Amino acid sequence: MKKKITIVENTTVITMNENRDIIENGVVVFEENKIIYVGDNKGKENFINKDNYEVEIIDGEEGILMPGMINCHTHASMVPFRSLADDYKDRLKRYLFPLEQKLVDENLTYIGAKYAIAEMLLGGVTTFCDMYYFEDEVAKASKELNMRGVLCETIVNFSAPDAKEPFGGLDYSRKFIEKWKNDSLIIPGIAPHAPYTNSDESLKEAYEISKKYNVPMTMHVAEMDYEFKECIEKHGMTPVQYLNKLGILDSNFISAHTVLVNDEDIKILKDKGVGVSHNIGANAKGAKGVAPIIKMKEEGINIGLGTDGPMSGNTLDVIGQMVQVGKIHKLFNNDRTILPSIELVEMATIGGAKVLGLDKEVGSIEVGKKADLALIETKSVNMQPIYDYYAAIVYSANASNIDTVIVDGKVVVKNKKLISGDFTEIRNNLLGLKDKINKIAKEL
Amino acid sequence: MKKKITIVENTTVITMNENRDIIENGVVVFEENKIIYVGDNKGKENFINKDNYEVEIIDGEEGILMPGMINCHTHASMVPFRSLADDYKDRLKRYLFPLEQKLVDENLTYIGAKYAIAEMLLGGVTTFCDMYYFEDEVAKASKELNMRGVLCETIVNFSAPDAKEPFGGLDYSRKFIEKWKNDSLIIPGIAPHAPYTNSDESLKEAYEISKKYNVPMTMHVAEMDYEFKECIEKHGMTPVQYLNKLGILDSNFISAHTVLVNDEDIKILKDKGVGVSHNIGANAKGAKGVAPIIKMKEEGINIGLGTDGPMSGNTLDVIGQMVQVGKIHKLFNNDRTILPSIELVEMATIGGAKVLGLDKEVGSIEVGKKADLALIETKSVNMQPIYDYYAAIVYSANASNIDTVIVDGKVVVKNKKLISGDFTEIRNNLLGLKDKINKIAKEL
Ligand SMILES: [Zn+2]
Ligand SMILES: [Zn+2]
Repeated sequence: MKKKITIVENTTVITMNENRDIIENGVVVFEENKIIYVGDNKGKENFINKDNYEVEIIDGEEGILMPGMINCHTHASMVPFRSLADDYKDRLKRYLFPLEQKLVDENLTYIGAKYAIAEMLLGGVTTFCDMYYFEDEVAKASKELNMRGVLCETIVNFSAPDAKEPFGGLDYSRKFIEKWKNDSLIIPGIAPHAPYTNSDESLKEAYEISKKYNVPMTMHVAEMDYEFKECIEKHGMTPVQYLNKLGILDSNFISAHTVLVNDEDIKILKDKGVGVSHNIGANAKGAKGVAPIIKMKEEGINIGLGTDGPMSGNTLDVIGQMVQVGKIHKLFNNDRTILPSIELVEMATIGGAKVLGLDKEVGSIEVGKKADLALIETKSVNMQPIYDYYAAIVYSANASNIDTVIVDGKVVVKNKKLISGDFTEIRNNLLGLKDKINKIAKEL
Repeated sequence: MKKKITIVENTTVITMNENRDIIENGVVVFEENKIIYVGDNKGKENFINKDNYEVEIIDGEEGILMPGMINCHTHASMVPFRSLADDYKDRLKRYLFPLEQKLVDENLTYIGAKYAIAEMLLGGVTTFCDMYYFEDEVAKASKELNMRGVLCETIVNFSAPDAKEPFGGLDYSRKFIEKWKNDSLIIPGIAPHAPYTNSDESLKEAYEISKKYNVPMTMHVAEMDYEFKECIEKHGMTPVQYLNKLGILDSNFISAHTVLVNDEDIKILKDKGVGVSHNIGANAKGAKGVAPIIKMKEEGINIGLGTDGPMSGNTLDVIGQMVQVGKIHKLFNNDRTILPSIELVEMATIGGAKVLGLDKEVGSIEVGKKADLALIETKSVNMQPIYDYYAAIVYSANASNIDTVIVDGKVVVKNKKLISGDFTEIRNNLLGLKDKINKIAKEL
């Protein structure tokens, strides 16, 4: 039987491999979901017109082929609430939690996830790490659209949409992890919401679950000023030190935000192998401060990028995060040479893969890795000229320049259109929720 | 003879008039280049099936119709250099000036301007304020693509690409202003580059020209740390105070950047009626600091947005500036409620019009004003849902969502395609410059 392979040609390959090789007029070949060749155009000959291969060719049309991007922190299903109450004070407690209590059910979670995943795929994101309720619905939506997801069920100390009893997410998590633990696309995990919405016991129990199944655990850490203050008052230490004292930090731990940390905290994160999701777009909009990622990077902590939920960061693509990260850190450090564009592309790809513990599988274009790819077209007016590919990706491109996206060897976006799902239906379902949400939001 | 009118219907009209009216299912009618009706869908009946009107209808397809945006500060013709040496130290003197000395001629200026203007139009910008050499070429490009331009010839104290003798731009300006002063789309002006690249005499002479012809004068002011230091050392005062002492600040003056200013400086700018172009995207990338626009706004100074040149800000659209302005000021002021999205849309439209002295003509959608309009489509995945139009424009939209653009009553962009020029030719001309630029840049 012939092997079915796909060849992406006529493209500049940004490999993000160890050497950070860039291959102009490069070719990537994959079989099923695995990359089997990365190299120059001549190497293609080994696969064409051979009896043992059935070949599909994708013309890259002189675009830029990069590893699919990785969104290390979001709440995908919140997209139905996007553009509500954006510039309000204390929005989390005043709008966000009440909206969730009144509105979030299986249906909204599924519809929201489906739309958000479509948006991420269309923006070149091929793996996302989600923290929400009804994660089983998010998993269903991910599978249907062929998205890679690290999906973590939320644990909170109050009655949640999918668990009446406080901390009910712990039970949900066990079942959810059991169900999905052997899936090819879904990596199930667990997500205590934050230090201030959990207890010593719930955090320890979540950690035991994470350890038992060897799955990711993610959490909002050192994000809020009141969280920090409360932690100092209650435990006499910073949030990071508190979590460390509980013994729950390890290399499965994905620390979202991580803004309010000092040198000792950074050392702890490094020692424990914790990865950090830097969510600057959302942090800036919420005036929460700037996580000290320059210092974290110097210490060797893995850093990926996250959009946070679409009520906080609004857009869900990672390509738009890079320029925000670069510019804000340049400003805050008074140094235009800090975080050159190559380092931003690293965070968006291989850095994020390391944070999620998936760097053996994704995050770079290398033989043996999964075929998770994003092709940026260079025909649009904003994309030319290009003297430096990393600069063009970071400073010129936006999510609308993503032309073709491949996840796990399957083409999910082609010519800027979603092909792994019916976008019109996905959009209509989202818009169907709008009136009810608007009504309830107005009553808040 | 029948009057030819155009009706834009089936759209939400963000008027940016005094009341900031938003008209859902609204209609805008214009005759030649003037708006003659703004209102609800019913009002349309007065124009349809009437003997005296020949009607062209533009279906807004449920998009958002806003005033064309205003780019208050750029160097359009530098787009051939975009993505060169982005994260380098002291880039202005090390790369930018040498590149210009070796490469800028009439041909590059024209080709660059044409491409940059196409990019601005495609991004919903309908007026731009330019500072460069060979402004006559920029005027030609603007006219050809039907762009409204405030075009200001540069004055520097060294040999410039278009004037061998130092300060040769003064003579160029006189001729340039004489030539274009009565044009419908081009507003000629004069642009001493910066305090540190001019003399007392050249600044005063430029001012006399601006006064004589009553045309705009623009300048980089208080942008660079070395500029500030040098000014204190040489004149014993800040750049703004120095310019004020020379007597050259008035309401024709457009102050670009204006980062390093104190309370006294702000008072001077206010008293003299100076408008400020806030270029945060470029200022952040260059780590130059954050102009105190919150204070300036409180004092009542007019503030518009600028992209700066495409070597500094990379993209040329104004829609992408708004979110950067909002987020960075929220962060620096530690207040998420600062600069809500309506205020950002103000800066991008009517605020910019005031800065350029064009608010009687453009900047809002009102009867009697010029038909300069930008239609944002709401079909793309990033644009839904919409509960707040200003938030959707600021936090969700990007330049690629601009569908239709009208300048001075003429449709210049339709279905995201440039129709006032041949984009393929414009693009090929730009790419034709690349090899030569790359070669010279590598020698620097
Ligand atoms: Zn979050
Ligand atoms: Zn400038």
